[in-house]
Amino acid sequence: MFYRYPDSLDNLISRLARLPGIGPKSAQRLAFHLLHAREQEALALADSILKARRLIHHCPLCANLTDEKVCQICSDPGREQGLLCVVEQPRDLVSMERTRSFNGLYHVLHGAISPIDGIGPEKLTAELLLTRLKNGRFQEVIMATNPNVEGEATAQYLARLIKPLQIKVSRIAHGVPVGGDLEYADEATLAQALSGRKTL
Amino acid sequence: MFYRYPDSLDNLISRLARLPGIGPKSAQRLAFHLLHAREQEALALADSILKARRLIHHCPLCANLTDEKVCQICSDPGREQGLLCVVEQPRDLVSMERTRSFNGLYHVLHGAISPIDGIGPEKLTAELLLTRLKNGRFQEVIMATNPNVEGEATAQYLARLIKPLQIKVSRIAHGVPVGGDLEYADEATLAQALSGRKTL
Repeated sequence: MFYRYPDSLDNLISRLARLPGIGPKSAQRLAFHLLHAREQEALALADSILKARRLIHHCPLCANLTDEKVCQICSDPGREQGLLCVVEQPRDLVSMERTRSFNGLYHVLHGAISPIDGIGPEKLTAELLLTRLKNGRFQEVIMATNPNVEGEATAQYLARLIKPLQIKVSRIAHGVPVGGDLEYADEATLAQALSGRKTL
Repeated sequence: MFYRYPDSLDNLISRLARLPGIGPKSAQRLAFHLLHAREQEALALADSILKARRLIHHCPLCANLTDEKVCQICSDPGREQGLLCVVEQPRDLVSMERTRSFNGLYHVLHGAISPIDGIGPEKLTAELLLTRLKNGRFQEVIMATNPNVEGEATAQYLARLIKPLQIKVSRIAHGVPVGGDLEYADEATLAQALSGRKTL
């Protein structure tokens, strides 16, 4: 083997290269950046990794990520306590919040049912959701799983389990995106937009 | 402001987003990866940043990066002690080593003269280089700075300072890249390849 970088730099490069979407060249560039950045900057990154790993856990009520005992949304008395929105991932929750059109509570599944990937309902937080619904006073559950095969299957599966509890289950609407162009909409979306049409 | 991720996750995302070439979406993806990866994996990355920052410094002889007292190349008695190759960056040194066609010593400038960026010779390790050449027994110095305006200027500048020391100064050859296509070679490179032609 020919000469490489010193061990500690080599190690940093290979650690960075294990991150998703970071190839060997980017890893090298990042490593040099971390070496040449202000000391405080590099140490803050290392510290933020350690802190996030130490503090972040699932909220015991909704399975959202939190660094408090119960997450910010579950502990907010100003939110509608009878309305629950089910999402796949914490980032979906953030997307929903960004709309500012939902003021209920959430439940985070941490995935969707996908037999091909070996993910059954037992790998999601479905159990936690059902226990919560049984013990709570929810009027409606909105299924906001992704509009793809896995998301639809998950929504259907959970709806079947929830309906016997006398709770209304709804699904977010499919249709053409706002600002979109009919010309570029796929047939499935357009068909859904047609069948879901509203009277003006 | 609407709800965001918990503070420690938000902080990790924004720290990652400060890295070069990492946008907000990639930073989010990396943060989730670090949260979901095995604990050991995430901690090892944090640790490698801290270690690299603590251990890596410039070799006092050649200014190459090292985590030992003197770098691996300077402390290797098997290398030709009379031949010195001047490069801009530690990564250039690694590229040179990869050729396996050089067995002398190196000097790392950590940049090139670039008046437009406010980088004069005093910001490089030129002083260290000259002291070393004055006190050493070097027969030849090879300028392997980049083949661009800044690299050429740096090579010319240093050559003028080194020649009075009775040391031969050379420059790596310009020409068409091996495996390249004449059709795609730019005029400047082709002109250099012509004037640098060798008898077969």
